[in-house]
Amino acid sequence: MQTLRKILDSHRFSRFVTTVILINAVTLGMETSAGIMERIGPIIHFIDYLCLSIFVAEILAKLLVARLRFFVSGWNVFDFVIVGIALVPGAQGLSVLRALRILRVLRVISVAPRLRRVVEGFITALPGMGSVFLLMAIIFYIGAVMATKLFGHSFPEWFGDLGLSAYSLFQIMTLESWSMGIVRPVMEVYPYAWAFFVPFIMVTTFAVVNLLVGLIVNSMQDAHSEEDDQRTGAYRDEVLARLEAIERRLSDSAAADQQTKK
Amino acid sequence: MQTLRKILDSHRFSRFVTTVILINAVTLGMETSAGIMERIGPIIHFIDYLCLSIFVAEILAKLLVARLRFFVSGWNVFDFVIVGIALVPGAQGLSVLRALRILRVLRVISVAPRLRRVVEGFITALPGMGSVFLLMAIIFYIGAVMATKLFGHSFPEWFGDLGLSAYSLFQIMTLESWSMGIVRPVMEVYPYAWAFFVPFIMVTTFAVVNLLVGLIVNSMQDAHSEEDDQRTGAYRDEVLARLEAIERRLSDSAAADQQTKK
Amino acid sequence: MQTLRKILDSHRFSRFVTTVILINAVTLGMETSAGIMERIGPIIHFIDYLCLSIFVAEILAKLLVARLRFFVSGWNVFDFVIVGIALVPGAQGLSVLRALRILRVLRVISVAPRLRRVVEGFITALPGMGSVFLLMAIIFYIGAVMATKLFGHSFPEWFGDLGLSAYSLFQIMTLESWSMGIVRPVMEVYPYAWAFFVPFIMVTTFAVVNLLVGLIVNSMQDAHSEEDDQRTGAYRDEVLARLEAIERRLSDSAAADQQTKK
Amino acid sequence: MQTLRKILDSHRFSRFVTTVILINAVTLGMETSAGIMERIGPIIHFIDYLCLSIFVAEILAKLLVARLRFFVSGWNVFDFVIVGIALVPGAQGLSVLRALRILRVLRVISVAPRLRRVVEGFITALPGMGSVFLLMAIIFYIGAVMATKLFGHSFPEWFGDLGLSAYSLFQIMTLESWSMGIVRPVMEVYPYAWAFFVPFIMVTTFAVVNLLVGLIVNSMQDAHSEEDDQRTGAYRDEVLARLEAIERRLSDSAAADQQTKK
Repeated sequence: MQTLRKILDSHRFSRFVTTVILINAVTLGMETSAGIMERIGPIIHFIDYLCLSIFVAEILAKLLVARLRFFVSGWNVFDFVIVGIALVPGAQGLSVLRALRILRVLRVISVAPRLRRVVEGFITALPGMGSVFLLMAIIFYIGAVMATKLFGHSFPEWFGDLGLSAYSLFQIMTLESWSMGIVRPVMEVYPYAWAFFVPFIMVTTFAVVNLLVGLIVNSMQDAHSEEDDQRTGAYRDEVLARLEAIERRLSDSAAADQQTKK
Repeated sequence: MQTLRKILDSHRFSRFVTTVILINAVTLGMETSAGIMERIGPIIHFIDYLCLSIFVAEILAKLLVARLRFFVSGWNVFDFVIVGIALVPGAQGLSVLRALRILRVLRVISVAPRLRRVVEGFITALPGMGSVFLLMAIIFYIGAVMATKLFGHSFPEWFGDLGLSAYSLFQIMTLESWSMGIVRPVMEVYPYAWAFFVPFIMVTTFAVVNLLVGLIVNSMQDAHSEEDDQRTGAYRDEVLARLEAIERRLSDSAAADQQTKK
Repeated sequence: MQTLRKILDSHRFSRFVTTVILINAVTLGMETSAGIMERIGPIIHFIDYLCLSIFVAEILAKLLVARLRFFVSGWNVFDFVIVGIALVPGAQGLSVLRALRILRVLRVISVAPRLRRVVEGFITALPGMGSVFLLMAIIFYIGAVMATKLFGHSFPEWFGDLGLSAYSLFQIMTLESWSMGIVRPVMEVYPYAWAFFVPFIMVTTFAVVNLLVGLIVNSMQDAHSEEDDQRTGAYRDEVLARLEAIERRLSDSAAADQQTKK
Repeated sequence: MQTLRKILDSHRFSRFVTTVILINAVTLGMETSAGIMERIGPIIHFIDYLCLSIFVAEILAKLLVARLRFFVSGWNVFDFVIVGIALVPGAQGLSVLRALRILRVLRVISVAPRLRRVVEGFITALPGMGSVFLLMAIIFYIGAVMATKLFGHSFPEWFGDLGLSAYSLFQIMTLESWSMGIVRPVMEVYPYAWAFFVPFIMVTTFAVVNLLVGLIVNSMQDAHSEEDDQRTGAYRDEVLARLEAIERRLSDSAAADQQTKK
């Protein structure tokens, strides 16, 4: 058990897993080429099964060592789900599930500490933007309902139901063909359609900009306060310590004076 | 009266109103689906009327308690207008006014303090950008007049009058199909049209970028000065207090020395 | 002469000029509408001439008072050129020059101090971006020459000469229809065209992003150092003054001690 | 040898090289015009060869002076490669290699110190973004494999193999015609295609935004810490020096008191 834990924690083992992931990434990429599959298809499938077996063995070993504490780390759960997808019965049949196997390459992130930190940075940035996301969800819901009611009858392809409207509004928010592709045709039937779409673009763009501003200000503050603590902290402590020392010395000499006079 | 005020201010009441808003949001969303309306249309309409009645009752109660001070808060005015739209006579007839009923969902913002703060943050950011907005309005007005005079004759669809030109210029500012859709066709008639549109794009993009920069700098300064006051304020006060104490002590001992010598 | 200067500097006069500019803006806007021109065309032309006369009189008066020092201020030169356009002989004939008359509305900026400051802020931000602009000009020149040589033969409409190539590259930099409109058709003839366009997009986008970053950092530093000087400046001066006072007092008492001992 | 070094380092020589580069830039630009080439083609070719000879002579002279240390500077290697392209045998035949000759204009950057610094600034910013770039490469690889497997069969033109998919995904990341041009047609065959593309857009856009935020925070910190050291450094040193002086004086007087009392 102790030996197993040591092996799992060793640098050599994590390098081995990384290599297996990269080999698997290459074989999964090769699978997309019909030419390669015709010639060496069975070999590629064999390597793929081999890699999968190694992943399963690795996760089982980790489960054995850590038991339920295994699921405390989000990255372990992440690995578990990604590897698990390939084991779903019938996974070899559904093309979508087969396509999801490539997600295994994401395990590179959970193995490489630097990439892990970047992704963790992304994820910790999310909650701070929660309110703005909620606000955008509300705006999208309202926009989708209004667009469906106003334009759904004449443009069922774009605004036929809530889902289609939400998708079209997302496209409009990204500014892709919003005018030539969507709003100008709509305006030929409803000449005042711009009064709905132009404010929608302004509001959502402004919200996105505010997300960006929030991200910048947060990262800056983090960077700033860290740097600040390191540098000015030492200086401040010294100033206060010295001031205290001077005061103590003064009160000592005053006490000494008092005694002398007696 | 006091009881009414207590009820209106209670957490339970605001949670009740939030629930009603969310239920209303769902029913208003369901109204967009023809299939659902066929089967349970009357029930949905009934729930909708019920929700509206609750909103009206809530606002009347608030009016009763606060009287004219009700209109001091911008959020109250906001609620009043949104609920009022549904009561406009004939509102059930005009499809636009009926579509506006979904705006009631915006009341979620006025009820949830966190969303309120985000929106208030957006709104307080606006005045600082007033001058740049005014400048952009001037640029758009000038651009619209010039585009109408120069290209209106040959491209009435895009630059036929001031309104169409302003809309087309807005589209060009968002960079949507500006070249393939608008400027290349225009350049086939007026080969030097790029001399109008390219500078227009540069100037408006630069103005938008400056809006963004202004927003970032402002938020940063707010965040910075707040943080600064909290942290360094205490330190500064202590340094000054200690320096003063040392000086006082020194002048005291000098005075004591004087006396001793006498 | 002194009276004239007083009048020109008075608040009432600048408010009068602003009003004239705004009236002129409205009449110039009305000129774009064929319907209005048919009915009250002569009146509008008369108001337009009146406004122009007032502007000419204003500038002549300013020239009379300030003589050549008039041209020291960039804003005066700006007003002079804008008003001068309308006086160019034949200006009433050329449609382009007639369209330029609307630029007079820009005089609102030179009259309103707040707008002036915003524009001056924009202009002072430009020199700091000079090197990046120069770099982008070099990249565009190289890109235009390469695109003309490589694709000019097959796509004369987009890359026929240096000017057309530069315009197409500008469009590609703004990401407008770059792939569906330009690069995919080009790739049907030259399959490796992406090896030119994708790096071009990356380099120019990166340069634009660096412009933005430079702008933000500069504005931030300006704002920061100003604020810093105001706030911490006073604090620092007080700390140093007090420390000096304590030292002086200590050396005084030491001297007094010396004397006492003698 | 010493004389050669002096000449190479002189201001006059670098100004001469800059002039040659600019002349070469103009002639290489002129080569794109069929009209000019017909009339004065031989002259332009002669100037071009002359410029190239000067560049070769310059680099040979530098090599002679600095020997292998020549290749220590990245800018020298840059010049060497750019000039070397023109000397590749058959370079006059291949149109791609001939088009690359215009890259010589990039030598302006290695000659002008200000442009050099800007480019060096760009390059030093790159390593800090390495992790995010690696992450985006992983996302693109996974996205390309998935898109090829899922949509390659029905849309061979866009997602036929890994390369085509990667190009299409790059186009989608830049938001160019992503919806009208690609996703809507795909959704007609695979109605749930949005579940792949919309998250892809969100993730890559978020990653790009984080690159931008990282760039801003880094530049800001650099600017900030530099400024900080300059300004507050002197102040801090003075405060600490004065505090030390006061303490020393106090301990001296205490020692003197001790002596007096004895």
